Amino acid sequence: MTQMEAISVAIVGASGYGGVQLVRLLLEHPLTTITYLGGEGSAGRPYSDLYPHLQHCLDLTVEAVDVDVIASKAQVVFLSLPNGLALELAQPLLAKGCKVLDLSADYRFRDLATYRQWYGTERQDDQLAAQAVYGLPELYRDKIALAQLVGCPGCYPTASLLALSPLLKQGLVLPETVIIDAKSGTSGGGRQGKINLLLAEADASLAAYGVARHRHTPEIEQICSDLAGQTVKVQFTPHLIPMPRGILATVYATLRDPGLVREDLITIFQAFYRHSPWVKILPPGIYPQTKWACGTNLCYIGIEVDERTGRVIIMSAIDNLMKGQAGQAVQCLNLMSGWSETLGLPQLAFYP
Amino acid sequence: MTQMEAISVAIVGASGYGGVQLVRLLLEHPLTTITYLGGEGSAGRPYSDLYPHLQHCLDLTVEAVDVDVIASKAQVVFLSLPNGLALELAQPLLAKGCKVLDLSADYRFRDLATYRQWYGTERQDDQLAAQAVYGLPELYRDKIALAQLVGCPGCYPTASLLALSPLLKQGLVLPETVIIDAKSGTSGGGRQGKINLLLAEADASLAAYGVARHRHTPEIEQICSDLAGQTVKVQFTPHLIPMPRGILATVYATLRDPGLVREDLITIFQAFYRHSPWVKILPPGIYPQTKWACGTNLCYIGIEVDERTGRVIIMSAIDNLMKGQAGQAVQCLNLMSGWSETLGLPQLAFYP
Amino acid sequence: MTQMEAISVAIVGASGYGGVQLVRLLLEHPLTTITYLGGEGSAGRPYSDLYPHLQHCLDLTVEAVDVDVIASKAQVVFLSLPNGLALELAQPLLAKGCKVLDLSADYRFRDLATYRQWYGTERQDDQLAAQAVYGLPELYRDKIALAQLVGCPGCYPTASLLALSPLLKQGLVLPETVIIDAKSGTSGGGRQGKINLLLAEADASLAAYGVARHRHTPEIEQICSDLAGQTVKVQFTPHLIPMPRGILATVYATLRDPGLVREDLITIFQAFYRHSPWVKILPPGIYPQTKWACGTNLCYIGIEVDERTGRVIIMSAIDNLMKGQAGQAVQCLNLMSGWSETLGLPQLAFYP
Amino acid sequence: MTQMEAISVAIVGASGYGGVQLVRLLLEHPLTTITYLGGEGSAGRPYSDLYPHLQHCLDLTVEAVDVDVIASKAQVVFLSLPNGLALELAQPLLAKGCKVLDLSADYRFRDLATYRQWYGTERQDDQLAAQAVYGLPELYRDKIALAQLVGCPGCYPTASLLALSPLLKQGLVLPETVIIDAKSGTSGGGRQGKINLLLAEADASLAAYGVARHRHTPEIEQICSDLAGQTVKVQFTPHLIPMPRGILATVYATLRDPGLVREDLITIFQAFYRHSPWVKILPPGIYPQTKWACGTNLCYIGIEVDERTGRVIIMSAIDNLMKGQAGQAVQCLNLMSGWSETLGLPQLAFYP
Repeated sequence: MTQMEAISVAIVGASGYGGVQLVRLLLEHPLTTITYLGGEGSAGRPYSDLYPHLQHCLDLTVEAVDVDVIASKAQVVFLSLPNGLALELAQPLLAKGCKVLDLSADYRFRDLATYRQWYGTERQDDQLAAQAVYGLPELYRDKIALAQLVGCPGCYPTASLLALSPLLKQGLVLPETVIIDAKSGTSGGGRQGKINLLLAEADASLAAYGVARHRHTPEIEQICSDLAGQTVKVQFTPHLIPMPRGILATVYATLRDPGLVREDLITIFQAFYRHSPWVKILPPGIYPQTKWACGTNLCYIGIEVDERTGRVIIMSAIDNLMKGQAGQAVQCLNLMSGWSETLGLPQLAFYP
Repeated sequence: MTQMEAISVAIVGASGYGGVQLVRLLLEHPLTTITYLGGEGSAGRPYSDLYPHLQHCLDLTVEAVDVDVIASKAQVVFLSLPNGLALELAQPLLAKGCKVLDLSADYRFRDLATYRQWYGTERQDDQLAAQAVYGLPELYRDKIALAQLVGCPGCYPTASLLALSPLLKQGLVLPETVIIDAKSGTSGGGRQGKINLLLAEADASLAAYGVARHRHTPEIEQICSDLAGQTVKVQFTPHLIPMPRGILATVYATLRDPGLVREDLITIFQAFYRHSPWVKILPPGIYPQTKWACGTNLCYIGIEVDERTGRVIIMSAIDNLMKGQAGQAVQCLNLMSGWSETLGLPQLAFYP
Repeated sequence: MTQMEAISVAIVGASGYGGVQLVRLLLEHPLTTITYLGGEGSAGRPYSDLYPHLQHCLDLTVEAVDVDVIASKAQVVFLSLPNGLALELAQPLLAKGCKVLDLSADYRFRDLATYRQWYGTERQDDQLAAQAVYGLPELYRDKIALAQLVGCPGCYPTASLLALSPLLKQGLVLPETVIIDAKSGTSGGGRQGKINLLLAEADASLAAYGVARHRHTPEIEQICSDLAGQTVKVQFTPHLIPMPRGILATVYATLRDPGLVREDLITIFQAFYRHSPWVKILPPGIYPQTKWACGTNLCYIGIEVDERTGRVIIMSAIDNLMKGQAGQAVQCLNLMSGWSETLGLPQLAFYP
Repeated sequence: MTQMEAISVAIVGASGYGGVQLVRLLLEHPLTTITYLGGEGSAGRPYSDLYPHLQHCLDLTVEAVDVDVIASKAQVVFLSLPNGLALELAQPLLAKGCKVLDLSADYRFRDLATYRQWYGTERQDDQLAAQAVYGLPELYRDKIALAQLVGCPGCYPTASLLALSPLLKQGLVLPETVIIDAKSGTSGGGRQGKINLLLAEADASLAAYGVARHRHTPEIEQICSDLAGQTVKVQFTPHLIPMPRGILATVYATLRDPGLVREDLITIFQAFYRHSPWVKILPPGIYPQTKWACGTNLCYIGIEVDERTGRVIIMSAIDNLMKGQAGQAVQCLNLMSGWSETLGLPQLAFYP
């Protein structure tokens, strides 16, 4: 391998949980240098005001968001903002030659009709949206490598799609039977003072939310339809779990061929992901714990077949802020930069 | 109402979590007196050795299990033992005139063929098992009132069946589409030193277990089949949640009539449970939190319909140790004693 | 006992955690009827909008705060408001003949100089403040019984003072050596969207706060000085613990007489609290868990002596929202109404 | 720097929490190769049976403990065993030329009289114990670099001593006033099925344990006495906190010079630890959260002075399994091998 040069990166929206994960990962990455941290609410404050534990390794002040300043400082820009803001920044940043990785929903949909229906925002950048690449490397590795604009997947879609892709791509299940019962730690709700995310409310308790109408549904369906070659509608139910991080998606689908056993499916999954270093297929009878993935960019997948009912049950565990967000964005950056997909990303959880 | 007399009750297996819930409930119950606490491992020890916080309200010593002693002290006996032990005690206690409420799986199956297949224990008391009443008052209120032996339901079956009963009884869903994704606090694993139940292992994490083979499956299916009037096989997946108490069952099924909306189903559920004081149907758009039920004998049910997929999603929340175990047993006792179903049982959770 | 009549009660500030505890306790209390719920932010909303799990037992709408309305509806008023608001309401409510129990800091200080110094609010009701009774029944039972206005203690002071009172009252320790290391669940921070109280931030973590300057310090010192008959300054350090409820105060002090052993102190504490049904002194070697007190109005106290260092260590566990707040207020109401101190208050925690 | 060669390391007691931390750290360390994993209970099992999430990066089987085998495979041996077992292994391993790092209490005491008094085990290796170096690099860096046998500190002593060392070494406080109120996550209790460590018992609760008699007391006192140049007795109280990892020690002591302010002490601490990369002194008004240290080898220290009482309060936060155990052992290994103290050790917590 020839000597590689470090690239300069900017993080816009550095104060939130996505932002601070990016900070941690890019600080530890051997070939990136953080040159800019942007935010509105915290502009002008030292970053260590927001996260005092990082004082010893980062001496930057959060800056107001200014496209010219960003483009003058950084080759690559991560946008870690609430939905609806990236669409103001992506175009001008691209025009100035930056590569852009957006962690919001703004560039996940090829067809903005779907976006408008589920997110309700007016916007006119249909052409740009159509060019953006969906940043799930396990499916779109080659396109990501060539992309200027990546729309990084949501946390639930990542866990769900890694569970479903081999099944749908190879026509192993009836698409209309797909049910995704997903469970997430509360950091998915962001670093904002919502009552329902308080420890006093959310700890020692459990509830579903957004049933039959969560915005990650059309995102999952878009990719599932691609994979299946037909329109797929999925049942998706998220739940809030009393823990800070981690997602488990428990996915149900009816097998076309009821003769398949779990060992068959494990073999199929292993083959499907043989070039995907971040996906680990577990041996028979082992089901993933979210804690195994926490702090890492890994996705652990466990597989079971119920011969009584003819269904396959896939359990997929990720860290919602890593493989489900910031880690996956850095994985995309690695591909876009011609580096190894694993460069600089943590792969060993601490346990317990 | 005429003056009612208190009855004497025994708890066999008082040292576990089921036992200590019974102790709390029966101490607070206006018409019961605890006269005997039995256990093997802790025989001879003051009960307050096991649970020091109860010292000020209970002055009993755990006794070795002896049928004659029990029958001489108590009119009603709660058996809160591991599976396979109640079947040694129930017959002789009944023979001595005691009423028996068994919290284990031993008397939940009318047909012991199913029990033998899933629990693997040899036993010959088929006739007694066939006489036992399944202790789910919302379905079998009248039979329980006349029973001498009640097999109290498992925690998962209680949450699952309260969600499914109106749907199956009235033929509203396709039985073969039923999927139950259940989530439980760790106290369901009992008061025993298992590695996977340690806080260090289970906290801040989440995993499925017993996928496609959990023993509560045939119990759910037995009652579902009764309700539907046909053999029903369900998909049941339990998960371990990082909290001490509470169960949420998220139940999926395809509606026969895709024109039904959630308000229809709410009306149907309210009617079905109109005489059931412990089941609360939530208004549209409200989904139950397990914490609302904790410490009470309540079951909260939320209902959603997904018009895109034609499915109904029912969320059912209980306290696994109360409505899912000891509270339900006391509810049965109330019925067996001719008292109000709600007598002495807590109905107001503390929150948060 | 002659037949007692129920009294009508109002709760001002019903939407917060103190408010909802009062709602639960007063609903279960045999001699109170809630006739008014007041609040600013939630005025006009059904109370079950705020706490859906209570819909089945309470059908009241939150009203804007109006003294005339309150006084027309209620004989007793609980003020559960942020500091600095009760002082606007107490005087007019008293003038209209209501009894007032204030859960804020406004009427905890006899001498408002201390209040002004630590809370920084201007106010001129020195005379009323001097008449208010500090609502810690274990110390001021007789005064509370006669009071029109009770300033209910803070959560930390309750746990701390119950641990310290026998020691200081009987001169057993050197007052200048008192250190209180206190630990609280996060509900003490209230039902408000603060970042540091989010589950994602506070779970699986631990930190001190307000070190050397927490506002409960002068409140503790006021009572300690009364007990000791001299000015007492205490070291008080609160910590935020990853749990919803509960306080443990670990109190250190140097014994005047190094010959005292823990059994002596247990005897002294038992004697001191012999008429206090809510304080339980634990046997030698047993230390309280906060969970034992949760949901109840109890305070569990464990006592240890370190003969190597000459110090006594007292551990005092309460539920911060019950004995530390709403439960204690109801205990005061019982005294003010001539009822048993224990009437209607829970004394059996559920466990686990 | 010249090219450095990797060394081979063995872990005896690999199945516990200390063991699995060592596995993770040594796998990620650039200059170590794990060549042997030993254990009794799990001998013969693939390590990934115990920790399935590590399957993709470690392919070793746990071996029965045999000194000859260990010495033939490894240059350095980590002993991560219950107290009282290392003393059987250290001598023969040293005799065969291995360097030994013991994570138990066996070699923490220079004078075995103290060990015998607090641990109650008979042993005769006084001479070896006297030669062992106490593995706290911030105090004994030079001795560790030359050591063949290191007795790694306990978790509580590490947090406590890093808080106390500057104070005692420089005579800033009255030694007899030292009180350490320490709080630990439950992983400190080890990977064993104890009832009190179950999530159902320990979650949402809090309690002290081992009050006035915890075995870490004499270990802290031994080093404090060294630092102060006089016999020091400390008050040490550990508490169990509902979280998997992390220790916070809140340390109280009376200042000799009441004129010192916190900024003075911060300066003194910064100077004391200026060559200690793993200790971070926080700015005024910032107190450490344990989560900042979790997964890293860092110790965060916050400092406060109470001018009203003349006391200093030091808060010291570590990960009990990292700086409090395995991380510190690897830090010692770095020193013993002539490497940088920070080599291969994580220094960036993920947050939240």
